[in-house]
Amino acid sequence: MTFAVLARDGTARQGRLTTPHGVVDTPAFMPVGTQGTVKSLTPADLREVGAQIVLANTYHLLLRPGHRLIRDLGGLHRFMAWDGPILTDSGGYQVWSLAALRALGEEGVRFRSHLDGGAEHLLTPELAVEVQHALGADVLHPLDECLPYPASREEAQASLERTVRWARRARAAHAQGAVPGQACFGIVQGGMYADLRRAAVEATCALGFDGYALGGFAVGEPRGLMVELVAATAEALPWAAPRYLMGVGRPTDLVDAVAGGVDLFDCVLPTRHARTGQVFTSRGPLVVKHAAFARDGGPLDEQCPCYACRHVSRAYLRHLFLARELTVYRLLTLHNLTYYLGLMAEIRAAIRVGAFEALRRAVHETHVSAIPETLTVLGGELPAPEEPS
Amino acid sequence: MTFAVLARDGTARQGRLTTPHGVVDTPAFMPVGTQGTVKSLTPADLREVGAQIVLANTYHLLLRPGHRLIRDLGGLHRFMAWDGPILTDSGGYQVWSLAALRALGEEGVRFRSHLDGGAEHLLTPELAVEVQHALGADVLHPLDECLPYPASREEAQASLERTVRWARRARAAHAQGAVPGQACFGIVQGGMYADLRRAAVEATCALGFDGYALGGFAVGEPRGLMVELVAATAEALPWAAPRYLMGVGRPTDLVDAVAGGVDLFDCVLPTRHARTGQVFTSRGPLVVKHAAFARDGGPLDEQCPCYACRHVSRAYLRHLFLARELTVYRLLTLHNLTYYLGLMAEIRAAIRVGAFEALRRAVHETHVSAIPETLTVLGGELPAPEEPS
Repeated sequence: MTFAVLARDGTARQGRLTTPHGVVDTPAFMPVGTQGTVKSLTPADLREVGAQIVLANTYHLLLRPGHRLIRDLGGLHRFMAWDGPILTDSGGYQVWSLAALRALGEEGVRFRSHLDGGAEHLLTPELAVEVQHALGADVLHPLDECLPYPASREEAQASLERTVRWARRARAAHAQGAVPGQACFGIVQGGMYADLRRAAVEATCALGFDGYALGGFAVGEPRGLMVELVAATAEALPWAAPRYLMGVGRPTDLVDAVAGGVDLFDCVLPTRHARTGQVFTSRGPLVVKHAAFARDGGPLDEQCPCYACRHVSRAYLRHLFLARELTVYRLLTLHNLTYYLGLMAEIRAAIRVGAFEALRRAVHETHVSAIPETLTVLGGELPAPEEPS
Repeated sequence: MTFAVLARDGTARQGRLTTPHGVVDTPAFMPVGTQGTVKSLTPADLREVGAQIVLANTYHLLLRPGHRLIRDLGGLHRFMAWDGPILTDSGGYQVWSLAALRALGEEGVRFRSHLDGGAEHLLTPELAVEVQHALGADVLHPLDECLPYPASREEAQASLERTVRWARRARAAHAQGAVPGQACFGIVQGGMYADLRRAAVEATCALGFDGYALGGFAVGEPRGLMVELVAATAEALPWAAPRYLMGVGRPTDLVDAVAGGVDLFDCVLPTRHARTGQVFTSRGPLVVKHAAFARDGGPLDEQCPCYACRHVSRAYLRHLFLARELTVYRLLTLHNLTYYLGLMAEIRAAIRVGAFEALRRAVHETHVSAIPETLTVLGGELPAPEEPS
C-alpha cells in the first residue's frame, strides 16, 4: 500500500491511497458493509454512487458466517463480489457495544456473542489479525480497547497502554501472516485527554504502522471537543501516513475533521438514516415521511444525480416509505451515499484549488439546524429495533 | 390496444399485445407491483430481468396513496417511473381476501380497509373503473365478485350473474372515461362448474371486451381441475382476443395453461418466494437457507444470467438470508423473475418452432417434486407476517 499527499489547503490534505484492489482518492468516505454487504446495495450500486472502498466489520464476520468459511471461498472480496479495496476494523468496538458479559484481560477480551445463543468467544490481538488476514482485507486494524465517555484520566491511560501493548502483538502477528500489500493501521486511543492522545500517537508511531486510525471518538463527547482533539491528534501524526477517523460522522463532522488533516472516514449515518427515511440533501436534511411531501412531485434534491432523484418524486418515496416497501430502503441508501460521496468529491476538488474553507462554511450553513451537540454512532450496521430489516 | 396471434402449436399461441406504452410478447408473465413497486425492485431492475409489463393492484392504490393523488402527479407510469405497459386488476379479489366487514349489494361492495384504522369504503363497478382510469392503466378490469372454493352451484351461478351485471356497468363507465388506447378486459367467473364457465364466457363476450380474464382460479381447487377448466374456458373464448389467467402460478401451471391457450399471467410466487428464500432454478426449486449451501461457492443456477448468479455464491446468499440483509431480497427477486421471464421466452420460442409439448414435459420433470396438489395465492403482494418488510 502506498499513500501520497497530492495537495494541501491549510492543514487539509488531498491524497491518494493505492491498495492491491485499487486506488482511493482522499479525503474518502467508506460506506459500511458490516456483514459483507452495504445494507440494501450490491457492488454495482456501490460503483454507481462512487464508492472506492468499503468497510467490513471483523466482529460480525467472525461470528457469522465465520472468517474461515470466507477464506475457504476465496476471501471477502470474492465472497461479496466487491473487487475494490476493503478496510476492516478490529472488532474491538463491537465487542464493547454489542456483546454481553465482556471480561477484559491482558490476553484479550472474552465475550458472549449477540448471536448464536450466547456462545463464549475469546478475541485476542492475534485472532483479530488472523480473522482480517483470512478475510483478505486491504487495510486491517489491531484489536483495541474502547472507552465509554466520560472516562477518568486513569481509565483512559490504562486503556491506551493496553491498546499499545495489544498493537505490538498485532504488529507481530501481522508481520507473520500478511499477504504482500496488506496494510495495517495503528489505532490511537487516549480518551478525551489531549496529552494522553499525544502519548498514544508517540507510542503507536514508535511501533510503526502503514497508517493511523483515530479511535474512541463519536462516543457521546461534545462536538467541539471532538473537533479540537481530532485536529490536535492528527497534527501529531506523521504527515506522510494516511489518517482515518473511525465511525465519524455527519457532513459537518467530515469537513471539520478534514480541516484538521483527516483522510479517511466511515459512518453508518447515511445508510442507517436512509432506512429510517432521513435524507441528506444539498439544502439540508429532509424527513421523507413528512406530510408536506404527500403531493410533492419534485425530486429529493434537484442537484442530485442518483437514481431516485432522476426518476421518482418525494411523493412516491413517501408513499413507499409509509407502505414499508423494500424498494425505498435501497433508493434512499443510494441517495444518501450519493450525497456523501459527492460531498467528498467536492472536498477534494476544493482542497486542490485552495477553496476548502469556503466549502466548509457552506456545509455548516446548510446543515446548521441539523447538528446536535453530541454524536454517538454504534459501530457496525445493526438495524435499530424499529427498522424493517 | 391491438393483439395478434403470430404462431400456434396445438392450442398454445404465441402473440403480441400492443399497448400505448409498448409491446408485450405473449405468453407473458407480469411481475406484481401491488403498491406501485415490484417489491425490492426498481424499473431499471424490471427491464434487466426482461419484464415487458407489470401488474398493479387497484385496491391497494385506492387506499394508499389514493388514485387521485397519483392522477394529479401524472398517473401511475410517471409515479412509479415505469414507462412500459401496466395492467390493473379490479380490486375485487383484494376486497375479498384482505378487507374486513364486507357487505355485498347490487350497488357494490362495502368494506373496511386493512389500513387506515378500518375506515369504511364502498367499491362500485363505476369507482373501480374511475380508479383505474385515474391510474392510467393500459389494461383495466371490471369489478368482479370472487368466490371461495368450494362453492355451491347456486352460489357460483349467482356470483357469475352479478359479475356480468357489474361488467355491463363497468363497460359503460369505461366508454365514458377512457383515454384512447386504454383497454378493458372482461372477467370470466363461474366457479369450478364447466357449464357455468361457458355461460360466463358467453355473457361476457356478448358485452364485448378487448380481452378476457379467467378469474377465480388458484383459490384452493385441485390442480387437475384447474388445468382442465382453464383449457375448456379458454377454448370457448374468441381466438382473436388475449386471454389472461389471473393470479397463476407455478412454472408447471404456466406451461399447462399456455397449452390450454392462455396468453397472460401474473402471480406473486416468484417475488414472494424470493423474500422467503425459495428459489426457482433450471434444475428445480432450492431453499437458500439450507445447511447444504453453507460452503457452496457455486451460483444458484449455472444456467441463469441474473446479477446474483453472475456475481455471488449460494454460500453468500445463504449468509445474507440468515443475517436478514435487505440486499438478499432484491438479489433473490431478480433471480426468480429472471427464471420466470426466461421460462416465458422459452415458451414463446418453443411455440414458434412447434416444440412446445417437449418443453412442457421438461418443465414438469424439473419441477415434479415441487408441485403440491393445490395452489392458493393471495391476490396482491402483501408481506407474510414472518417476512422482513
